[in-house]
Amino acid sequence: MGLRIAADVKLGEGVRMHGFVNLYGCEIGDGTRIGCFVEIQKGAKVGSRCKVSSHTFICEGVEIGDEVFVGHGVMFTNDRYPKAVGVDGALLESGGWECLPTRVGNGASIGSGSTVLPGVCIGRGAVVGAGSVVTRDVADGATVFGNPAVVRKEGA
Amino acid sequence: MGLRIAADVKLGEGVRMHGFVNLYGCEIGDGTRIGCFVEIQKGAKVGSRCKVSSHTFICEGVEIGDEVFVGHGVMFTNDRYPKAVGVDGALLESGGWECLPTRVGNGASIGSGSTVLPGVCIGRGAVVGAGSVVTRDVADGATVFGNPAVVRKEGA
Amino acid sequence: MGLRIAADVKLGEGVRMHGFVNLYGCEIGDGTRIGCFVEIQKGAKVGSRCKVSSHTFICEGVEIGDEVFVGHGVMFTNDRYPKAVGVDGALLESGGWECLPTRVGNGASIGSGSTVLPGVCIGRGAVVGAGSVVTRDVADGATVFGNPAVVRKEGA
Repeated sequence: MGLRIAADVKLGEGVRMHGFVNLYGCEIGDGTRIGCFVEIQKGAKVGSRCKVSSHTFICEGVEIGDEVFVGHGVMFTNDRYPKAVGVDGALLESGGWECLPTRVGNGASIGSGSTVLPGVCIGRGAVVGAGSVVTRDVADGATVFGNPAVVRKEGA
Repeated sequence: MGLRIAADVKLGEGVRMHGFVNLYGCEIGDGTRIGCFVEIQKGAKVGSRCKVSSHTFICEGVEIGDEVFVGHGVMFTNDRYPKAVGVDGALLESGGWECLPTRVGNGASIGSGSTVLPGVCIGRGAVVGAGSVVTRDVADGATVFGNPAVVRKEGA
Repeated sequence: MGLRIAADVKLGEGVRMHGFVNLYGCEIGDGTRIGCFVEIQKGAKVGSRCKVSSHTFICEGVEIGDEVFVGHGVMFTNDRYPKAVGVDGALLESGGWECLPTRVGNGASIGSGSTVLPGVCIGRGAVVGAGSVVTRDVADGATVFGNPAVVRKEGA
């Protein structure tokens, strides 16, 4: 019930979804599981064997590696200065602002309720604690949390 | 798919919605775009040419101006001391608590993952950074962020 | 529209739901109201005369008492070290990690936009301010808020 999956979505083998998702123009790797109330926009890529938990939003410009855990209610962003309208007063559409790329490395884990600012790189095996606001890059294997998220454990 | 729009909703011209919304008793201005998984309650007003992004909740008592950007997963509130039940033990219904008004001025931008406490006024052209918790008024043109959100750049 | 309620859900009398919910294997007490875009997982228990507001996620291992207010966009968690896959490289399913229990006492109130870390106990009549990240136990009647949530008013 409630799978809204546009024709241009590239779904890998064995992707599982359970209901109330909105996917368009994105690419999802093999064996990944996508929870309820998830939206994934065009141009976003999610790797293989990931868990994308309920209530999460993955926007254009986000590229997530393999075996990544994305918790519940995680909000990615791609625009540092979001506005509703442009200088001409017309609603801004995709392409109407600088879309900053966000990368999440293989095996990383992003805790529930986190917000990820645009343009950051979350390293391989990095851990973002629940409820964090990630404002800068996270090194491979590091653990960060808080608002703003700061390093609590250095990477290996 | 999944547009739950009550008969009492006042929709302006050219309002766009894509799926999974729950709107009742609210008023939406011309040309505004409403993302997926959005709920807007009775008595709420959203102006013209706004973007209300996915996963956002706009409650009774909230009045949003024109050309406002509301990010993803933004939670408005209207009750300073929310409870499930009243002194009689019955579930509290709308009208059963003091509904504090929240105002968002024209051209403001509220970052994704933010929570707005009840009764605040976010000024014209103000910017609320992603992941913020807004606990007090924000002056016209000011930039705030953090939990609690504090002023990072004064208004003009 | 959009009530996805598995056959194994135990619903009390007079439970109200309005649309777009995903419930499976959980137990909901009499007279409780569940908002839109809510997911409640198997093994979770919600008491009687509670309000579970829109956009909230209640996971396995969570037990909520009676007359509890759960705000909008509240994320519960049950795994301290969430991962997408196990050591064998297969996606982790329920049972594949240590599920820490979370308890919320009767009459408590959890503000919108809050995240609750796994294994905490939120006491009877306790108040969690909006936008908080609850990382440790909250005493009966205490008020906490912030990220991390700290005590602002001691319990009675």
